Amino acid sequence: MDDDQERQQLIERDRAWAKLAESEGDVEEILEFWTDDAVVIPPGMPPVVGKEALRAYVEGTRTIPGFSISWTTDSVEVSADGSMAWILGTNLVEMDTEAGHVRAEGRVATVWRKEHDGTWRCCLDMWNDAPADG
Amino acid sequence: MDDDQERQQLIERDRAWAKLAESEGDVEEILEFWTDDAVVIPPGMPPVVGKEALRAYVEGTRTIPGFSISWTTDSVEVSADGSMAWILGTNLVEMDTEAGHVRAEGRVATVWRKEHDGTWRCCLDMWNDAPADG
Repeated sequence: MDDDQERQQLIERDRAWAKLAESEGDVEEILEFWTDDAVVIPPGMPPVVGKEALRAYVEGTRTIPGFSISWTTDSVEVSADGSMAWILGTNLVEMDTEAGHVRAEGRVATVWRKEHDGTWRCCLDMWNDAPADG
Repeated sequence: MDDDQERQQLIERDRAWAKLAESEGDVEEILEFWTDDAVVIPPGMPPVVGKEALRAYVEGTRTIPGFSISWTTDSVEVSADGSMAWILGTNLVEMDTEAGHVRAEGRVATVWRKEHDGTWRCCLDMWNDAPADG
């Protein structure tokens, strides 16, 4: 597989993941996109490390009133051997709080590892807040 | 070079960079650690993209009263072919503001590319705020 195909495959995979998350799809299917040792670092919250913690994290979001998450896949770089990659995008997290509806726009970096089964999975997932003026 | 040597080399490089930044070392030497197309994404600020913008960014920090930055190198993963890597660490940014001295603790993810000259350089540098209680 050449570099372009590899990159295209990963873009499609990240977009499929986003679609699944956005539509509140099956939790186990969503978890399949992370490696077993994945680290997710939301702003202002402790890191969420590993499959069990991630399952609780995703299930937790389902109980938040008005919660939604979506993200874009903007740039992708794949290592020469096609074993590691990183993606930069933007995300939008929304929820209802006592103070009203909150929209948090962010920038997301993810790192991906191609695992032994030939599948790309995300091993690092970190975002931070966009400037207040967008 | 085996994986362990490669990882060790990168850890030493990231630590040398931190030492240089912490001691307000030479700006051009600091810039040497980023790729020409590097993207730095501080929380709540627009992305800083490319060498020229990074030079202005680093020079800008030198004019902030009481500014200091330091970071740790906690975990490193290198691609099988030794061409790409990512590092997770924590950072501490301090400065004096009108409201007093501010200490911002964060978590940092960096992605590194081994360039044609055999040198590891950072192509993505993103951090976010640690929980308020540390």
